[in-house]
Amino acid sequence: MAHIDLPEGLPGITGPLTSYPETAKHLRGLAEALLRGPSSLTAAERELIATYVSAQNECFFCMNSHAAIARSLFGENRDLVDQAIADFQRADLSDKMKALLVIAGKVQQGGRSVTDGDVATARAAGADDKAIHDTVLIAAAFCMFNRYVDGLATWAPEEAAEYEQAGALRAEKGYLYVAGSDK
Amino acid sequence: MAHIDLPEGLPGITGPLTSYPETAKHLRGLAEALLRGPSSLTAAERELIATYVSAQNECFFCMNSHAAIARSLFGENRDLVDQAIADFQRADLSDKMKALLVIAGKVQQGGRSVTDGDVATARAAGADDKAIHDTVLIAAAFCMFNRYVDGLATWAPEEAAEYEQAGALRAEKGYLYVAGSDK
Repeated sequence: MAHIDLPEGLPGITGPLTSYPETAKHLRGLAEALLRGPSSLTAAERELIATYVSAQNECFFCMNSHAAIARSLFGENRDLVDQAIADFQRADLSDKMKALLVIAGKVQQGGRSVTDGDVATARAAGADDKAIHDTVLIAAAFCMFNRYVDGLATWAPEEAAEYEQAGALRAEKGYLYVAGSDK
Repeated sequence: MAHIDLPEGLPGITGPLTSYPETAKHLRGLAEALLRGPSSLTAAERELIATYVSAQNECFFCMNSHAAIARSLFGENRDLVDQAIADFQRADLSDKMKALLVIAGKVQQGGRSVTDGDVATARAAGADDKAIHDTVLIAAAFCMFNRYVDGLATWAPEEAAEYEQAGALRAEKGYLYVAGSDK
């Protein structure tokens, strides 16, 4: 049971987002700007970073949710997502993405772990300032989202099929869409 | 030197907030709603939670910034802030605040560390759902803000006096205020 009273049947972060709309507005806006707004990284690449960080934080709901969104966005290359969760250094990813996932993993451990060398490696592989900025902020933001979901002990569906369906919808509609509303 | 190109002379988070306004809008909005919006916790109590989490994350800029804001808001009781950073269990705080700081510390380590017992203790000491929600989200959000500041290796002033001055201004104006703008 969750640590606070939340609406029944709303999985993961959607319970507290529904019950606490003043903060939800900004959390949804941040996700939309960061994961869907202009960037030198594709939406699929950004979802992969979100998925990887959520896996490192062992947040079951967020990892499964964002893995499903990433699979939907990668389309034919959907297998990359599970490869990256298992061992991104052996996944069929670009050197740039591998270097950015190294940075994301360091941010997950604590911001001061990121070294000049980590950033130089990412730049040499083609990452620009915006890619480095977005990687750091996505990793940081998922350290928040993961803790919001797990710190309140929210309910998470166990069935993989539920995440795939919700993920395909979120991939299509983005983060400002609220199921059951007109948005 | 910061890991990405940022405007000179802007301390800590203000550099990336200035350079990346699309995400800054939501980060500022979140801070304002969470730390200044309606809550069963005072603004001073919420800043104390933000300060404590920033100290646990060893984020020099955020800890000093929010400690200064908290001191300004606590007024006569400003010594509580440094007591709480040093050892909150021995500080002259209510049992409710101590129980909430335990929860915040657990969230800082990882959301799944928060136990039913931690929450029951906080409730017995007078914390309601909103206080527990806000404590979890403040702790989670500062795990993001701290990583954003340190993951980009932003510049932080060393002089305590600079934090006191900026803290008093932020305590008065809130988080939507941008120095040098009309807001």
